Amino acid sequence: MNLPATSKVSFGGDYNPAQWPEEVWKEDYRLFDAARIDTVTLGVFDWALTQPGPQVYDFSVLDRIVERATAEGRGICLATGTGAHPAWLARAHPEVTRTDFEGRRHRFGQRHNSCPNSPVFRRLSAEMARRVARRYAGNPSIVAWHVGNEYGGACYCDLCAAAFRDWLRARYGTLDALNAAWYTTFWSHTLGDWEEIEAPSALTEHWRGPNHTAFQGITLDYLRFMSDAMLTNFRDELAAIRESSPDVPVTTNFMGMYRPIDYHRWAAHLDFVSWDNYPPDDHSPWWMALAHDLMRGLKDGQPFWLMEQTPSYTASRDVNPLKRPGVMRLWSWQAVAHGADAVLFFQLRASRGACEKYHGAVIGHAGRPDTRVFREVAQLGAELERLGPTVLGARTPARVALLFDWDSWWALEISDGPSRHLRYQQIVVAYHRAVWEAGADVDVVPVTADLSRYDVVVAPALHMLKGDLPRRLEEVAERGGSVVTTFLSGRVDENDHAFLMDVPGPLGPLMGIRVDEWDAREPEVVNPVHLQGSDSPVEVESRLLFELVIPQGAEVVGTYRADFYAGTPAVTRNTFGAGDGWYVAAGLDQEGVSWVVRRVLDRHDLVGPYADVPNLETAVRVAPDGTRLLFLLHHGDEPAETTARSGGVDLLSGDRVTRGEPIRLGPRAVLVLRETG
Amino acid sequence: MNLPATSKVSFGGDYNPAQWPEEVWKEDYRLFDAARIDTVTLGVFDWALTQPGPQVYDFSVLDRIVERATAEGRGICLATGTGAHPAWLARAHPEVTRTDFEGRRHRFGQRHNSCPNSPVFRRLSAEMARRVARRYAGNPSIVAWHVGNEYGGACYCDLCAAAFRDWLRARYGTLDALNAAWYTTFWSHTLGDWEEIEAPSALTEHWRGPNHTAFQGITLDYLRFMSDAMLTNFRDELAAIRESSPDVPVTTNFMGMYRPIDYHRWAAHLDFVSWDNYPPDDHSPWWMALAHDLMRGLKDGQPFWLMEQTPSYTASRDVNPLKRPGVMRLWSWQAVAHGADAVLFFQLRASRGACEKYHGAVIGHAGRPDTRVFREVAQLGAELERLGPTVLGARTPARVALLFDWDSWWALEISDGPSRHLRYQQIVVAYHRAVWEAGADVDVVPVTADLSRYDVVVAPALHMLKGDLPRRLEEVAERGGSVVTTFLSGRVDENDHAFLMDVPGPLGPLMGIRVDEWDAREPEVVNPVHLQGSDSPVEVESRLLFELVIPQGAEVVGTYRADFYAGTPAVTRNTFGAGDGWYVAAGLDQEGVSWVVRRVLDRHDLVGPYADVPNLETAVRVAPDGTRLLFLLHHGDEPAETTARSGGVDLLSGDRVTRGEPIRLGPRAVLVLRETG
Amino acid sequence: MNLPATSKVSFGGDYNPAQWPEEVWKEDYRLFDAARIDTVTLGVFDWALTQPGPQVYDFSVLDRIVERATAEGRGICLATGTGAHPAWLARAHPEVTRTDFEGRRHRFGQRHNSCPNSPVFRRLSAEMARRVARRYAGNPSIVAWHVGNEYGGACYCDLCAAAFRDWLRARYGTLDALNAAWYTTFWSHTLGDWEEIEAPSALTEHWRGPNHTAFQGITLDYLRFMSDAMLTNFRDELAAIRESSPDVPVTTNFMGMYRPIDYHRWAAHLDFVSWDNYPPDDHSPWWMALAHDLMRGLKDGQPFWLMEQTPSYTASRDVNPLKRPGVMRLWSWQAVAHGADAVLFFQLRASRGACEKYHGAVIGHAGRPDTRVFREVAQLGAELERLGPTVLGARTPARVALLFDWDSWWALEISDGPSRHLRYQQIVVAYHRAVWEAGADVDVVPVTADLSRYDVVVAPALHMLKGDLPRRLEEVAERGGSVVTTFLSGRVDENDHAFLMDVPGPLGPLMGIRVDEWDAREPEVVNPVHLQGSDSPVEVESRLLFELVIPQGAEVVGTYRADFYAGTPAVTRNTFGAGDGWYVAAGLDQEGVSWVVRRVLDRHDLVGPYADVPNLETAVRVAPDGTRLLFLLHHGDEPAETTARSGGVDLLSGDRVTRGEPIRLGPRAVLVLRETG
Repeated sequence: MNLPATSKVSFGGDYNPAQWPEEVWKEDYRLFDAARIDTVTLGVFDWALTQPGPQVYDFSVLDRIVERATAEGRGICLATGTGAHPAWLARAHPEVTRTDFEGRRHRFGQRHNSCPNSPVFRRLSAEMARRVARRYAGNPSIVAWHVGNEYGGACYCDLCAAAFRDWLRARYGTLDALNAAWYTTFWSHTLGDWEEIEAPSALTEHWRGPNHTAFQGITLDYLRFMSDAMLTNFRDELAAIRESSPDVPVTTNFMGMYRPIDYHRWAAHLDFVSWDNYPPDDHSPWWMALAHDLMRGLKDGQPFWLMEQTPSYTASRDVNPLKRPGVMRLWSWQAVAHGADAVLFFQLRASRGACEKYHGAVIGHAGRPDTRVFREVAQLGAELERLGPTVLGARTPARVALLFDWDSWWALEISDGPSRHLRYQQIVVAYHRAVWEAGADVDVVPVTADLSRYDVVVAPALHMLKGDLPRRLEEVAERGGSVVTTFLSGRVDENDHAFLMDVPGPLGPLMGIRVDEWDAREPEVVNPVHLQGSDSPVEVESRLLFELVIPQGAEVVGTYRADFYAGTPAVTRNTFGAGDGWYVAAGLDQEGVSWVVRRVLDRHDLVGPYADVPNLETAVRVAPDGTRLLFLLHHGDEPAETTARSGGVDLLSGDRVTRGEPIRLGPRAVLVLRETG
Repeated sequence: MNLPATSKVSFGGDYNPAQWPEEVWKEDYRLFDAARIDTVTLGVFDWALTQPGPQVYDFSVLDRIVERATAEGRGICLATGTGAHPAWLARAHPEVTRTDFEGRRHRFGQRHNSCPNSPVFRRLSAEMARRVARRYAGNPSIVAWHVGNEYGGACYCDLCAAAFRDWLRARYGTLDALNAAWYTTFWSHTLGDWEEIEAPSALTEHWRGPNHTAFQGITLDYLRFMSDAMLTNFRDELAAIRESSPDVPVTTNFMGMYRPIDYHRWAAHLDFVSWDNYPPDDHSPWWMALAHDLMRGLKDGQPFWLMEQTPSYTASRDVNPLKRPGVMRLWSWQAVAHGADAVLFFQLRASRGACEKYHGAVIGHAGRPDTRVFREVAQLGAELERLGPTVLGARTPARVALLFDWDSWWALEISDGPSRHLRYQQIVVAYHRAVWEAGADVDVVPVTADLSRYDVVVAPALHMLKGDLPRRLEEVAERGGSVVTTFLSGRVDENDHAFLMDVPGPLGPLMGIRVDEWDAREPEVVNPVHLQGSDSPVEVESRLLFELVIPQGAEVVGTYRADFYAGTPAVTRNTFGAGDGWYVAAGLDQEGVSWVVRRVLDRHDLVGPYADVPNLETAVRVAPDGTRLLFLLHHGDEPAETTARSGGVDLLSGDRVTRGEPIRLGPRAVLVLRETG
Repeated sequence: MNLPATSKVSFGGDYNPAQWPEEVWKEDYRLFDAARIDTVTLGVFDWALTQPGPQVYDFSVLDRIVERATAEGRGICLATGTGAHPAWLARAHPEVTRTDFEGRRHRFGQRHNSCPNSPVFRRLSAEMARRVARRYAGNPSIVAWHVGNEYGGACYCDLCAAAFRDWLRARYGTLDALNAAWYTTFWSHTLGDWEEIEAPSALTEHWRGPNHTAFQGITLDYLRFMSDAMLTNFRDELAAIRESSPDVPVTTNFMGMYRPIDYHRWAAHLDFVSWDNYPPDDHSPWWMALAHDLMRGLKDGQPFWLMEQTPSYTASRDVNPLKRPGVMRLWSWQAVAHGADAVLFFQLRASRGACEKYHGAVIGHAGRPDTRVFREVAQLGAELERLGPTVLGARTPARVALLFDWDSWWALEISDGPSRHLRYQQIVVAYHRAVWEAGADVDVVPVTADLSRYDVVVAPALHMLKGDLPRRLEEVAERGGSVVTTFLSGRVDENDHAFLMDVPGPLGPLMGIRVDEWDAREPEVVNPVHLQGSDSPVEVESRLLFELVIPQGAEVVGTYRADFYAGTPAVTRNTFGAGDGWYVAAGLDQEGVSWVVRRVLDRHDLVGPYADVPNLETAVRVAPDGTRLLFLLHHGDEPAETTARSGGVDLLSGDRVTRGEPIRLGPRAVLVLRETG
């Protein structure tokens, strides 16, 4: 199955009319019309509404809501509503709530609050999905099913411990294999019985928190297990939906770079990917670009839905800044540029009470359409209508791949040593940003992806090497490609055992180096790195980690300038087959990372045409009919001017753009250029 | 009933002779004589002494203590001693201890440790109060009863959850009303049975801590409930005391701006207010001024007792600075200036062990009277003796009111969005300080107070609007007064539901503005605000929150200077009736707040006569006989000189002050001027 | 009994061949040979290996490991392996795990995880020690028994509470005595039954953490009790070993300045002291010097073993820096210079998995001997071989003693007031560093030590005074010596009761001062102190605490320069008998501390010959045959040159050094000079 069948980029968002009297619904649809809102996500937290008691199902309110949306001609993304269980369920079955990392059984409250291994939760959530699908499957307005909501968190109860043991039995077969994998000869941990296994928590192996564990093996497996357990929850509901609705696509809303869930293990089970874009700040467009690319890469480049974004502000942060004029529009188009076939908001009408009262909405508490925010939403709605079906299903023609690996993320961050300041996401963001700033389209893919279609593979902090990945990376280089990797790559196998060979382990031949020792320093310590380009050399900063490289054939590209290892290599390039392997041994600053990445891209002629224009993001999508759409996204606050590198028509303004002629870009300007040459 | 019947400002403090052999008592009274100490607070933590076992009451030691104090001619503030329960009670009834926010049942230890809804605590604490009162009521030296001690904290046990349900039943009547008030359609929270209600804690709705909740409704009600539950504890003892002592006034010691207890709901039940003054630092006299004014406002301007202050240093802070020479005296007079009819210390003799061993005392471990601290205490004692009855019962003739509202405090700080950096107390302190620096006497009053006697009403961060308050504020303006309010005012009703109208909700007509959106920024971000005065304009800083104001009739007084809303209003003034409404939309710095407040006070000719003298605080009390006392409190470290704006006699020095003549003020000087013109 | 019988400084470390196939063992010994490794510590965490089930003991693997080491001619330090209990034990006896400070019973996991008062742990750990000793006692390669590992932590379970009550009964005899000691008249805490006593934790007397308690008495006693309880665990195993091995010395590895365990109470029960040196950073050689001196002082100057150090980096820190070239060697020699008769590493071969995977090892994951780290280890091995038996048993001829007192450490840091920023260890380090920089050998000794052999006794932050210590300090001065003490000394007796006399309590006569009050300030507040030397005066900084001194005969050496106490004494010297007492009333910076200490040492002609050479540490050991070894340890990164103050032969290079001739010291140079004049 594939994406929902829609005739244009879907536009709308979460809508909770159950919170309002019906006279408000009418006003809502009047405003939706004004804003060209064609899609509503319904029922995301409706469990208490649709099952008010153990034996009682009541769809009367949801019926009216769905009927109204249908009558109003909207596409419906209908949720199963199981993201929070009702109070009666927690009271009748206390084991349905979660036990936290501190070992505390929670009571009724919050959301995303169900133990994923609770039999009653599994049974009743599936039953709810079954009933929702059965009841509404015949409604042609249903464009997609939305299962649960933002799966995440973890549970450490006895039910989970028991399920963990089952999961381990399936993975390892024997206790001997498990003991070997967890390295239990260390610290007298040899297990003699499966029942001795506890959920790893603050009460067992951990100290200071979830990242500090005495045994990486059990903690890593619990992370894998918990991600799998929630996947089982999703699959429970998916199977129940399929019984009566075999053809409507099913999704759940992901959260981009979300550590607890290995989306690569989930993606095959979703018909299409959707995600909620709440960036950590309002000045890092590269962060969102990476998240979009990651989400697009989950299903091999298939477009995705932007399921949620705020039109104005969030509420749950310490500080919730307002999206400046033009920002919501710019970011919406950025999503489309990176593969979104829907642009949806949380939410359409603001709730009056509880914790999202101050989260922005298309329609605020005063219900006005004459606000700046509403006007910008309506303007975007009009633009998406104008665009029509052109972009639907269009693909990104990337020649660069960036490897993203939840196992490496987990393994790196739960390690003792060398430095707790090293964060996987920060390292990956820096390398992706370097590619992004160079204007090269990039796929963010799992380590199991087919790499044969890429000229450049960037693998930052690839701590864990599994399966035949080292060989496949070598093949990239053999046929003329470039592989870039960094410090702390190639350290451990899938059990988090150090490779019994020189660092960087199986990547050693490709990188042509050997690392015997490394230095970690406090964040304020800088070791300057001298980078020797073909042109003028530059000096950049490195921090946090400094591996000491002994070249085994590699050419030295950058050298440390300080400390007892001054003059030794910090960056190397190794010729391998017709291509090469690049190794960055130190925590380079963004300038350093960008310098290295730019050299690699240059070698393959992959630097984008507008790479020299500050703040100007470009992205390409190629429609199924071959139409090539070039998105120009100007993140700057000031007007800019540049020269068109290709010609075509801007689908938003209808203006013609001629190669070689000037383009003027206002602050936060967006062009969607159907390229014609 | 009223204040204790005393012939002068009471002077003394907490005294715990049970910690000492009787030979020390004699020495104590010798030193009390030397310091003119006329009042002792006895028995504050005597429960284990007076009830050493479940069936055993033993007043023999307390008898001797009271007898001695009586014989020595001191006034006695006698405590019921229930601020900490005895160990045998916790062992016999484990439910008497508290369960904390993390869900952990505590065991015996600490103080303020009783579950307020524990039946055994309620029964035995009342019984203790009954016995104490019965035993000592006939002693004419008893000037006041002191119930419990510094009520506060919270409990989350099952007994409290059950009592919470009863409280909710009484408040809401039906579950439907409760569901509506808590907005439970959000996140599937609809309650079908009262028994589903849990105490809101880290195990239910909360994340990160007590201020982070998924449901503001339940959290807000639990705050109200817990304050009421402790009030019930106080009332239990009060009723038991009244049985045998109908005429001696009863109090408990409050703690100024103490968030957990809504003193406005308590005040009617106390005969007089007393409080413990432990300011957060030693360089913010305005903080104490506000706390005093708040305490005086609890019972409609009735004088209060300063029940505790340290003569030198505290012990429980990370850093416990020493009160510099003259500071204890200056702050004691500040208390009197703001309405205190007693000046008491914690404590008279220093304890040898446990956690207050290093808390300052009038008599230190060495027992010397020849210390600086003892000398200053004795000097103050002499001054108070000289003052005699003059000030007793005197009232503050304020024309300015500042609204202080626990509900707004709670609602603002438990909200998600717009900014966790906004703290109710800081905002209120800034506005009160502005009035204080302008030398205007100000009453700090509840939102239910009669506002008809004020020319200016300042209502900072009045997040929640209840009852007819909006109308009463309009009436202030209609008759020519000024109302000042700020960002985040008028947002929610008593259930913490956003008003379904333009911000600032029901305050909109009075303020003549409308706010559609707002921006929050990290603390380091400054937006300069240009204030257009009658004279020269000034530029001040604003931070944290920036509401975007659309005037609906208001005049623009200040404008933002930066960001996309540069040039739009940050401060407005709206003519309303014969008066006006002022709105401050941004987090102005102190200079900005003071500028606005000074303009408002100027309009009503309320700026004090010494407002231009730095560090010179003034306060007025008018005695029952009409005598007008002007307190001049010089908080500066350096000598200052100014011109007398009125004449009279300084009651401390006996010096005559003549209007128009110079006054010389040494560092930390105090004058109590009986004004004669 | 005494130190292990060895023929030279033992060299080697922890070795865990059970983690490896036997073919690796062979390679290990080949590399041990190359590095002159002569000693292996075996079996430190082998419990799960040697007792795989409740009724099963299996020594087959350990037999092979011991056999191999024996066959290879190594000395063996054989562990009982009880530092972590096996999983089956935790499952069969859940009470064997610890309950933490938060009151949470832990489950199986981590190490150092046994409740010290669990009967089953006590029984089975002793039985394991018994069986290990019985099995291997006949092997002459066993040079020492190693009991448990790094004893520490705490448990708060009901078993511990019961044992605590027994310990208290033994200490106090009666509840009355206990009530008096804990000052329970305060806050209604009088205990009427032993069963009312709880383990003091977050659920009873504590707030914020282990250092914040309402009752210092119970917390202090629990610290003493827990240290004693673990000592009982050690003694259980010691007694079991003695049954079959009366002559082989027994140790356990200490951790230097480790707060939870009062090593002074332990030391008499060990045959020799050993410790693990993991300094908090890599640029504070004085920190290690103090720790070595403290360890040497535990058994009255007897040499100790350096049981663990890393050859390169740790893993458990947030940042784990690499030991620079020469550092491991320099620090190893520093250990020897301060009394170590063994230099051992953790560990010989790096583990592949779990939390010490990235902890440095002599043999890394790649198994290479051609790494920098291995080469430096081998070089050190060669040097130690060259040194031979010369240093064994040699003693430090110190004339200076520094008092180190766990009771004062605890009492100071669990006090409320005057400042939480004052840390005992930092204060002691500053005073020891001053002596160290002055080149004077110093013994760090308990307060019960014989002080008659010292000319100078330094007692920083000697908060608690017990027994006849004040008199013995006076005797030091009476016979011409100097006693130096500081702020917060002489405050409390052994029950943490304030002395009922002027501060500094019983030290008053010796110091000739009186302190009535003190000021604490935030860390950024500086009060300059003027120090009046014989030569030119200097001005230094003081922070945190400022006691106000009223001289009672003492001469003023330094005065405050700021605040209302400007001009009053900050440092005093009191002539007492033929000697003097020095009092430092303020938190002087290092320069100030060093100035005072240098004056005191000067007076006794104890400043070392190289005190003027920056970064050059000196230490003397005198061998049993009277040979005097002068260690010159150059901690600088740059070469230095100085003049020899004595002549002799450098035992490492064989070079002759002539008094008055230049010595050239490379970066991190070490000389071991057999002095000949």
